[in-house]
Amino acid sequence: MQLTLERGADVPLYRQVADQVRDLIRRGVLSPGSRLPTVRQLARDLGLTRLTVHSAYGELHAQGLVEATVGRGTFVAAHPLTVRPTSIRPAPAPQPPASWLSQGDFAELGGMIEQPGLLSFAQAVPAPETYPVRELERALRVVPADPSALSYGPMQGEAALRGEVSRLLLERGVIAPPEGVLITSGAQQGIDLVLRAFAAPHDVVLVEEPTYPGAIELAAQRGQRIVGIPRDEDGLSLTVLEATCQLYHPRLLYLIPTFHNPSGVSLPEAQRADLLRLARKHELLLLEDDVYGWLAVDGPAPLPLKAEDEDGQVIYATSFSKALAPGLRLGALVAAETHMPRLVAAKYSSDLISSPLVQRALAEYLRRGSLDRHLRHVRVLYGARRDAMLDALERFVPGCAWTRPAGGLSIWLTLPEDASEREVYAALLARGVAVAPGRAFFPHPVTRGFLRLSFGSHPPHEIQRAIEVLGRVLIDQRKRHSEAVARAGREVAPLV
Amino acid sequence: MQLTLERGADVPLYRQVADQVRDLIRRGVLSPGSRLPTVRQLARDLGLTRLTVHSAYGELHAQGLVEATVGRGTFVAAHPLTVRPTSIRPAPAPQPPASWLSQGDFAELGGMIEQPGLLSFAQAVPAPETYPVRELERALRVVPADPSALSYGPMQGEAALRGEVSRLLLERGVIAPPEGVLITSGAQQGIDLVLRAFAAPHDVVLVEEPTYPGAIELAAQRGQRIVGIPRDEDGLSLTVLEATCQLYHPRLLYLIPTFHNPSGVSLPEAQRADLLRLARKHELLLLEDDVYGWLAVDGPAPLPLKAEDEDGQVIYATSFSKALAPGLRLGALVAAETHMPRLVAAKYSSDLISSPLVQRALAEYLRRGSLDRHLRHVRVLYGARRDAMLDALERFVPGCAWTRPAGGLSIWLTLPEDASEREVYAALLARGVAVAPGRAFFPHPVTRGFLRLSFGSHPPHEIQRAIEVLGRVLIDQRKRHSEAVARAGREVAPLV
Repeated sequence: MQLTLERGADVPLYRQVADQVRDLIRRGVLSPGSRLPTVRQLARDLGLTRLTVHSAYGELHAQGLVEATVGRGTFVAAHPLTVRPTSIRPAPAPQPPASWLSQGDFAELGGMIEQPGLLSFAQAVPAPETYPVRELERALRVVPADPSALSYGPMQGEAALRGEVSRLLLERGVIAPPEGVLITSGAQQGIDLVLRAFAAPHDVVLVEEPTYPGAIELAAQRGQRIVGIPRDEDGLSLTVLEATCQLYHPRLLYLIPTFHNPSGVSLPEAQRADLLRLARKHELLLLEDDVYGWLAVDGPAPLPLKAEDEDGQVIYATSFSKALAPGLRLGALVAAETHMPRLVAAKYSSDLISSPLVQRALAEYLRRGSLDRHLRHVRVLYGARRDAMLDALERFVPGCAWTRPAGGLSIWLTLPEDASEREVYAALLARGVAVAPGRAFFPHPVTRGFLRLSFGSHPPHEIQRAIEVLGRVLIDQRKRHSEAVARAGREVAPLV
Repeated sequence: MQLTLERGADVPLYRQVADQVRDLIRRGVLSPGSRLPTVRQLARDLGLTRLTVHSAYGELHAQGLVEATVGRGTFVAAHPLTVRPTSIRPAPAPQPPASWLSQGDFAELGGMIEQPGLLSFAQAVPAPETYPVRELERALRVVPADPSALSYGPMQGEAALRGEVSRLLLERGVIAPPEGVLITSGAQQGIDLVLRAFAAPHDVVLVEEPTYPGAIELAAQRGQRIVGIPRDEDGLSLTVLEATCQLYHPRLLYLIPTFHNPSGVSLPEAQRADLLRLARKHELLLLEDDVYGWLAVDGPAPLPLKAEDEDGQVIYATSFSKALAPGLRLGALVAAETHMPRLVAAKYSSDLISSPLVQRALAEYLRRGSLDRHLRHVRVLYGARRDAMLDALERFVPGCAWTRPAGGLSIWLTLPEDASEREVYAALLARGVAVAPGRAFFPHPVTRGFLRLSFGSHPPHEIQRAIEVLGRVLIDQRKRHSEAVARAGREVAPLV
């Protein structure tokens, strides 16, 4: 293997080795399955320390380009080029991500909600007209006569609500006795509690890439280091996941298997067993976020991973924010008995308890079986809205790819290569349409532009109008881009 | 200065130096105001490194025994012996405290709530019979007709509630425009948000000693290091506070100036200006917890520190849990404009928002002026309960000291020197009386025993019954203790 190293260059030696080996793999000089020199041998050949070569191989490993087998050596991966472009880059130095909320974007997004007349597809929210206002009012009226609903209740949550959650989850194939359920203030708090309880500051936490921004922000604020594992329509890159586990010994992987946020796509059936096996092997906790699983549109939703979790490797988080109404601020964690005391302690230091008043009202609502009726209704509604958005994308939006989710509230759109996400986002806002910018869903900067379009809270005609605006914005941008390229050709002085 | 060092001993050299100098100060050999040798000189005299002597002086400093003035030297403090015994001990190694909730005590305390027939004085809770069930029910009925009450509202909180909080705080002398108010899920979340936003893991955080266990638990879980500053009936030890600031450059001090938890005693008027000056000088954020300030019994409560905060050094946390009903899970932070974005980002990653439904109901309740009426009523009630507890303590409890709070919900009792806190606590539980064990209120183990007795949720005759039980338990314990001492004298074989 011929490598040329430049000592004293800005690029560290291990990176030079990794880059050149990667190049050899890409050009096919090193074919899939071929064996790399041993660390010791390459170090001797190049006059490097073994640590340097080891670091280079580690990086290639994390990128899914090579595979190591103890006692046999290091080999070019069987399918190194199926790894997505976002993963073919230097292994992300596991640093805490930047807290994008604390920056300018935050004000922009926060302010958006209040702009009058704005058509917002930025938040993945249910349709407000479906909120069961009357039923909840009735349920609330049953409750407050008892002052204990206004006192401190048990930290783990009201027994009545834990019982109802236990019953509900059975329908989704999750066997969770009421003692295994912890009531949270939405799934966001569920994620927070798990990170508090099981990941120390500076620990490496894995997330899917892209993923829910609230999880990224959280890990950033806790000083945890994030490594993203590529997730696309084919699922999660298990090659990268395994390599990352070997490199960083992460404590947990946060993932949204069902109707993934932002893409809306579920994890392929075929990956589930492998993922669980891998988690067991590397003692990796899986934090499964299942807030969208209730909103299946085409047939029943896949079962949660938790349904197949035999040894407590999965902590399951859900909420009633998408299934019912976000303003309730109620969700639940399901965890193994051994995990529960730490989670309850985390709940105590977060906010002691969730409101027993609202918990009891929700328990009463669930006891009446009203959620089933509600879900039957909204699934039809969201199906129609999703279809309206997909149709409008087909008709009006050129040069983009997008997902076709079978449930959830969002579609994930990949912008054309030459389109600027920031410009598209700003142009849309200027025309009264808000979307979620793709970069919010990545822990580290990405070059490609994306948008998340949430269809839950607008009727079909508004969806169509907004997507038409998106189409025009993209066509305008492409025109301006071509003109700029043409102008550049004419106006730029030759470099002589 | 004659010191005798034992090299190779288990006690490190700096500790030997510190211990012996402390001893010289205690015995009066070194008198207040006298000058210690310079670090350089003492190091030469004793054949030590300067770092060793510096560490020894640092420890004496943290204990308030010596004062250093740059360019002048190190002097014995003017009143070294007024520093309380708890501070005369090795400077606490600033380690994260043990999370006591995650240990056995937690199960014990958590289980207690559910024991039938238990008279519990362990939780500082308001009287459930005072919860304004009817008014809140009416207020709730006004709200939910509008589906936006069940959606995601602004992260900083509902405008209506922020407006009402702003108005309320004006009555307490705090000028907080609605933009400076952040709605939280109780004060516990307020504390959590401030620690999230302004103290990194491993940062040193100061608390009063004793203090609210929820704050200790929180810092422990965040991996922050806690240093306790003694607080007693004379207030906060500003000498120790200043020395600690010099040693550790802490980021913030969490304190409960008004009707302090657990002691019920307020910070003396005379200390307030000094404390604020000291905070400014050392760029120390003050996190003021004012959940009990609403419950003044003898005349009006002292003004919050925030009322005198001219340059945003104080972040103010309050809640409606003690003033109204804990089950609402609503409170508020008041912070300078520059602090707000980070706090809002912390709120986002904790639980996104607090329930808009409950926020609006509380706003409606406050708008009607119902809180004033409610507080007039409960202040009389708590006055009577406090008096009942003080009277019963006088009559039934020998050999203890206790505080005489002018408000709040708790009395802090110091057990006799020979009494075991754990034994008293267990004996009380066995007789159907729960109290809060003192050690829960300290970040590090203490030798003296304490109990917190909360009088808010029981009528006078139950208070009297419980305090009688406490008296009997203490008398029994003393009797058994004397018998054991006498037996020991008779039965132990002489060491020959």
